[in-house]
Amino acid sequence: MKDKVSPKLVAQQYRAEVREVVSGLEQPIRLQGFLSEKSPKPSRTYARYTRRGCEDVGIDFRLSTVPRLELEDRIRAANEDPSVHGVIIYYPIFGTGQDRYLKDLIDPSKDVEGLCSHWIQKLYKNVRTVEGEPNRKAVLPCTPLAVLKMLRAGGVPAQDGLPFGGQVVTIFNRSEVVGRPLASMLANDGARVYSFDVDGPILFERVKLSETGVSRAEALAKSDIVITGVPSAGFPLIQAEEISERCVGLNFSTLKNFSEAARDKVRLFIPRVGPVTVAMCLRNTLRLYRNFHQPSLLENE
Amino acid sequence: MKDKVSPKLVAQQYRAEVREVVSGLEQPIRLQGFLSEKSPKPSRTYARYTRRGCEDVGIDFRLSTVPRLELEDRIRAANEDPSVHGVIIYYPIFGTGQDRYLKDLIDPSKDVEGLCSHWIQKLYKNVRTVEGEPNRKAVLPCTPLAVLKMLRAGGVPAQDGLPFGGQVVTIFNRSEVVGRPLASMLANDGARVYSFDVDGPILFERVKLSETGVSRAEALAKSDIVITGVPSAGFPLIQAEEISERCVGLNFSTLKNFSEAARDKVRLFIPRVGPVTVAMCLRNTLRLYRNFHQPSLLENE
Repeated sequence: MKDKVSPKLVAQQYRAEVREVVSGLEQPIRLQGFLSEKSPKPSRTYARYTRRGCEDVGIDFRLSTVPRLELEDRIRAANEDPSVHGVIIYYPIFGTGQDRYLKDLIDPSKDVEGLCSHWIQKLYKNVRTVEGEPNRKAVLPCTPLAVLKMLRAGGVPAQDGLPFGGQVVTIFNRSEVVGRPLASMLANDGARVYSFDVDGPILFERVKLSETGVSRAEALAKSDIVITGVPSAGFPLIQAEEISERCVGLNFSTLKNFSEAARDKVRLFIPRVGPVTVAMCLRNTLRLYRNFHQPSLLENE
Repeated sequence: MKDKVSPKLVAQQYRAEVREVVSGLEQPIRLQGFLSEKSPKPSRTYARYTRRGCEDVGIDFRLSTVPRLELEDRIRAANEDPSVHGVIIYYPIFGTGQDRYLKDLIDPSKDVEGLCSHWIQKLYKNVRTVEGEPNRKAVLPCTPLAVLKMLRAGGVPAQDGLPFGGQVVTIFNRSEVVGRPLASMLANDGARVYSFDVDGPILFERVKLSETGVSRAEALAKSDIVITGVPSAGFPLIQAEEISERCVGLNFSTLKNFSEAARDKVRLFIPRVGPVTVAMCLRNTLRLYRNFHQPSLLENE
């Protein structure tokens, strides 16, 4: 019998934790979401799921749909508004490098997605707490974090005190929003990660990065975990012959990246992480509130 | 007789200014450049021109060619090294979104290219000085700045006290490194700028941005200045019929974006700005030194 793990159930678990803490807070937490007037359907769907998640855990979610050219001013206003504790933008807005610019406009103390330079630089340095505040945890990006949580829930064994110690992982995708942070997070947690992208494979290990001449076939044959996130129909699907039976497969792309037979062969296949991504977004909102906005905390400073 | 303006002569003018100030300084200014082991030829050429420019004005240029995966550590080291006053990275390094990440690793006080979030956000807010320091000027990105200087040298008339007051400009390119900063800088200086890119035209004006339904034909017909920077052979060349005789044309792409006849028709055609870009890079190095690193200045603080 094949292993199974439901993203919905994993999400519920994290939502329950957030709900419990939120219910004991002295004031409501507010999360401000932004869509553009031209946002595509997947963005609007993600926003709808965020709303449902917020309602479920007791976070006050406000969603504004604004002309894309007004977004910059609206982000600055949200940064300055003390009643807003978290900000999330549903990309793509421009669909160009300008979206990266928007990411860095969000104040790090309100950046629920953890994708501004402040948080992402911490991640790559494996610095896990707020500067000078060992008790306040850093914010990690939602989708890579959701992937980690799903893999943990799927029974990947810890080793040497590291959650992914000894695991060999292959990832197809090295985008700045999912694939690269994910490779780094898994390596920080002990895995040996072969990261494939258009500019060649890179090996991520706990202590260093290195160029590698590894082929796709070699990397896949060695891997305990195979993760894909390739939004292109031209990607040659992962085939059953390329991977081992003890392998966990996970795809976070909206396109299929594994063949039917490969999905059947692996010990566990995780076809989506969306509900957990939303749960991580709620969890990050709470973390930002507790790190930076909680009145009782601020009084002590 | 057609107007002419030589990028080389314009560059010499700015280099002479920098040389004069540098020769009076109490210590040498050092600029640290970084190439990767796999840097393509244009990057290496740009680095060679930087070296020549530095030698000409008396700036101590050090060039390091490093494995791309070591660049991050090297940038951090340069940030902390008090003998380094400016840092320049010759892109592409990864050729992916990771290059944007590298841009934000450079300390703003050493960012010669003016492309990190700190400086670029100032530009878009039209804030022209260092925070709380009205006498210290902000750093602007080199290539857009070189375009402005070439247009000024080409005799574009100021109006209402604004260097580009009343001018209508069309730009094909809205990249985060040249086209968008350029549109914003021209608009800040009084121009009305139609900016074209894959995600549609946007009108940049001094006080606001707006979506526009303007067609290429309409924008070009109205324009006093037409600027192109399209690195694609599929771009339909600017034709003589599309533009007016009083027009100034400027192309900063390495590919031809104007037809032969269009180049002949315009009042002035500027086919490249490279030498001025290098001069602006020297000028920015000096500016950073005087703003942030000059011993006599630091003593007064």
